[in-house]
Amino acid sequence: MSYEKFVLGIDYGTESGRVVVIRVRNGEEIGSAVIPYPDGVIDEKLPCGPRLEPDWALQNPRDYLLVTEKGVPKALKAAKVKGEDVIGVGTDFTASSPLPVKRDGAPLCFLSPYRKRPHAWVKLWKHHAAQPEANQINEVGRERNEEFIQIYGGKYSSEWFFSKVLQLLNEDPEIYDATDRFIEAADWIVWQLTGEEKRNTCTAGYKGMWIKGKGFPSEEFFRTLHPRLANVIETKVGENFYPLGQRAGGLTAFWARKTGLKDGTPVAVGNVDAHVAVPACTVTQPGALVMIMGTSICHMVLGTGRQMVEGMCGTVEDGIVPGLWGYEAGQSAVGDIFAWFFEHGVPDYIHHEARKLKASLATALEKRAAALKPGEFGLLALDWWNGNRSVLVDVDLTGALLGMTLATKAEEIYRALIEATAFGTRTIIEAFESKGVEVKALVACGGLPEKNKLLMQIYADVTGREIKLAEQLQTCSALGSAMHGAVAAGRAGGGYDSIAEAAQHMAHVQKLTYRPKAQNHAIYNRLFKEYQTLHDYFGRGENDVMKRLKVLRREQAAR
Amino acid sequence: MSYEKFVLGIDYGTESGRVVVIRVRNGEEIGSAVIPYPDGVIDEKLPCGPRLEPDWALQNPRDYLLVTEKGVPKALKAAKVKGEDVIGVGTDFTASSPLPVKRDGAPLCFLSPYRKRPHAWVKLWKHHAAQPEANQINEVGRERNEEFIQIYGGKYSSEWFFSKVLQLLNEDPEIYDATDRFIEAADWIVWQLTGEEKRNTCTAGYKGMWIKGKGFPSEEFFRTLHPRLANVIETKVGENFYPLGQRAGGLTAFWARKTGLKDGTPVAVGNVDAHVAVPACTVTQPGALVMIMGTSICHMVLGTGRQMVEGMCGTVEDGIVPGLWGYEAGQSAVGDIFAWFFEHGVPDYIHHEARKLKASLATALEKRAAALKPGEFGLLALDWWNGNRSVLVDVDLTGALLGMTLATKAEEIYRALIEATAFGTRTIIEAFESKGVEVKALVACGGLPEKNKLLMQIYADVTGREIKLAEQLQTCSALGSAMHGAVAAGRAGGGYDSIAEAAQHMAHVQKLTYRPKAQNHAIYNRLFKEYQTLHDYFGRGENDVMKRLKVLRREQAAR
Repeated sequence: MSYEKFVLGIDYGTESGRVVVIRVRNGEEIGSAVIPYPDGVIDEKLPCGPRLEPDWALQNPRDYLLVTEKGVPKALKAAKVKGEDVIGVGTDFTASSPLPVKRDGAPLCFLSPYRKRPHAWVKLWKHHAAQPEANQINEVGRERNEEFIQIYGGKYSSEWFFSKVLQLLNEDPEIYDATDRFIEAADWIVWQLTGEEKRNTCTAGYKGMWIKGKGFPSEEFFRTLHPRLANVIETKVGENFYPLGQRAGGLTAFWARKTGLKDGTPVAVGNVDAHVAVPACTVTQPGALVMIMGTSICHMVLGTGRQMVEGMCGTVEDGIVPGLWGYEAGQSAVGDIFAWFFEHGVPDYIHHEARKLKASLATALEKRAAALKPGEFGLLALDWWNGNRSVLVDVDLTGALLGMTLATKAEEIYRALIEATAFGTRTIIEAFESKGVEVKALVACGGLPEKNKLLMQIYADVTGREIKLAEQLQTCSALGSAMHGAVAAGRAGGGYDSIAEAAQHMAHVQKLTYRPKAQNHAIYNRLFKEYQTLHDYFGRGENDVMKRLKVLRREQAAR
Repeated sequence: MSYEKFVLGIDYGTESGRVVVIRVRNGEEIGSAVIPYPDGVIDEKLPCGPRLEPDWALQNPRDYLLVTEKGVPKALKAAKVKGEDVIGVGTDFTASSPLPVKRDGAPLCFLSPYRKRPHAWVKLWKHHAAQPEANQINEVGRERNEEFIQIYGGKYSSEWFFSKVLQLLNEDPEIYDATDRFIEAADWIVWQLTGEEKRNTCTAGYKGMWIKGKGFPSEEFFRTLHPRLANVIETKVGENFYPLGQRAGGLTAFWARKTGLKDGTPVAVGNVDAHVAVPACTVTQPGALVMIMGTSICHMVLGTGRQMVEGMCGTVEDGIVPGLWGYEAGQSAVGDIFAWFFEHGVPDYIHHEARKLKASLATALEKRAAALKPGEFGLLALDWWNGNRSVLVDVDLTGALLGMTLATKAEEIYRALIEATAFGTRTIIEAFESKGVEVKALVACGGLPEKNKLLMQIYADVTGREIKLAEQLQTCSALGSAMHGAVAAGRAGGGYDSIAEAAQHMAHVQKLTYRPKAQNHAIYNRLFKEYQTLHDYFGRGENDVMKRLKVLRREQAAR
């Protein structure tokens, strides 16, 4: 055995899985492998033939096994690390991505009687066909004043566990009957690796109505949703959930052979991709907000108690770091708005300039937009191109832009769009702080911070807060999983005894930070006030024009 | 002398002048000539050297003479019409475009002591440097409750006669002293052609505070503006104004020689380009609204009495057709908004499609936009890219667009912009009708109706009214001038005794009309209600965000 020890992090994503080999001592990434899912996102037809309805999105659990089987040896090889020097494994998953399985863990979609039935497969997080069920859950939840309604900022999502289970029961009761366990893919993969069905508190708390010390809503609640759902917890889900970083079990002999790791290597309980990134961004205490910035933004912050903050996606004890309350909020489109603009709003002269600079559209636009002063171009936008997640929790809101004159230029619109998303983040921060959940500093990870320096500076100027960047911007989740693997190993096993300790050694921020400029912040305070007025006018019912336009749109599209 | 008689119309525009030869019997255009002004719009430096301040726009009156001298023979030649067969001449002009002249009509800018002084030249309608003077006029006018304030919808414009005269007095009092007459170019050219200083009621009424039967505001009003302005009417303007179609005099021997027309040919008093187009669109009675549709839209309608309609540009007795009240309203940007969008908002895929179709951007966009149903794409805009002329009379308002999603396409935005301008026109129509000024039918002329069939159909659908098109879409003003030349000749002189009679014979509409589709009109009624709510919210003081953004913009630009 050599002196250096390593841990593995496995991040099971939407299109592929990533395995990283991390040095326990300092968190350094030694090697990695990315394995695309052969079946990817299944949203048109099942691999075995049957077509899917619109809004469906499934996955094949065999792809997760493949990522493990191919990715682990490949990453070890790239890192030149021997399996025997790996002291722990951690995993994270998209969520909520539940699947129906038999008592032995076999997914129904692997079994010939069920494999042509769409409901037998994993419902991926972005499966959106369970909206009627989500509506019913919210209605019943509100009527009964169920606690989960508050925890989820007033709305249980169609993307989440019980919306999907109820849709399955409504549409294919035979599959419901054949199911022994409904389980998150995050917990299923850990079950596969260890032989232990040990479910994690994070997915259960953020997506599954589970509350620490209280468990699930009552049988009566589930019976009101559907008589046959009454005993779903008792018979098909279970009541035991394990906090993050806990050892779920040791790697089975089967998986040790498959991967080249040691038989019995500690495996941590599952985790959610966004949430596991928080300690990898160095955050294990209250006061700092982690922003996972990409096509959308997830905002994560820790608190010492439970506060009802408006429009949260979830507020879960032990949900991110054991012993603290984890808050999750989000903006449903950020990078996606810019991508929309690049495709649908960028005129000839920017294309021309990009060619001249031999640069991307984004670079050409950023260069021009960076030369503008805040407020100098008179535009203001509402960043609701994909609805508003936090704090309004309203998918029927839409984007707005005002202030245009005959002299308005494309780079001005681009800058206004960036600013609007920054105002969206500030709105979330102010919601936290209004309830005493402190946000003193910001730490960013994800794809956007590297791509868009102007955006980062604008976020610092708008929020009036310094923004630090995670050392591993793009692989934060995999690093976070590896850190939980180190905690599952424990100090005795060559790892760490807590996630805070692991973060101290393994998580780092970059030297580069974005500091707010006082002069710009003062201007943005004025613009933010205008944003707030429009936000409330269009978002809180004073003028529901956006919703009425959507209703008309649906009517006309149906004609 | 042959049987057929002809009249000439001369339209003195912004960049050029147009002469048309019209058959009196049926209004047919037999020939025409367009003569560009050699000095064009003078907005950077005087032809003799001195540079101009920003917002200045001047013209050289020599260019008007040149248009007459070259254009008339050229048009006669093109028409193969002899000068002796021309029985009358009518003219129209941009307005307000005043100039200072000596007692004999000589422009000060022709005289060597003054020609290097910017204030000695014609101030073109779009000279915008007299805003402080306009502000003062409005302040004093409101304090004193002057009648002109009401006539002009609450605001006297910086573009108009006395704003420009007061600026001249403030900035170059020597020129003021040297001026014997301040006169509209519309009246000056008629004075040149006939030797008679006979000013017209249209320019005076719409731009010069003159009210039929009452004249100008009092000496005291003018003294309050500036002590030296007290006697401006008495000494430099005069009190006599002549109704449209009246014979100002006969062509002088000098101009007869220059042009090949007969000595003494009747010349009508001057007119304004937009207003003279009304009878050329067949409208000489109340009930039909004329829309002159181009970069902006002018809306003209006739009424039997004076009503205070919100946001009118002017309400003038005898201002368009003698014996009736002429109402003028307007939208400050229409075609200009589309031109802005073509330049600043059209993405690659539309450019690509235009190349594929071998068509213009406008055509490619129109084709896609025409395939959309009203309301199907969920967008709504406020058409204030260049402020709002009627009914809000507010240059500080700006454009807005809402309803965007990640699926919004360029042609949807284009269609929403067209619809917004149609809602702007409907707002004006409803303002008229709310005060009993009937608008039963619409007649359009100008450049847009030919270019944009989709736009015309949308205007019909939004307003719920049939839209007819003038036979001479692009040369309505010149035809209208010629018609007034025929009235100046009178029936005895081979013409007509009234503009209504002239219109009956000489003005025509096309067979092609746009009729509203009931189903679309019903949808647009719903969308118009939404437009109205936003119009009032942003336009009537409930949320002055657009103005505050402009203030901030000016502050930041100045830093």
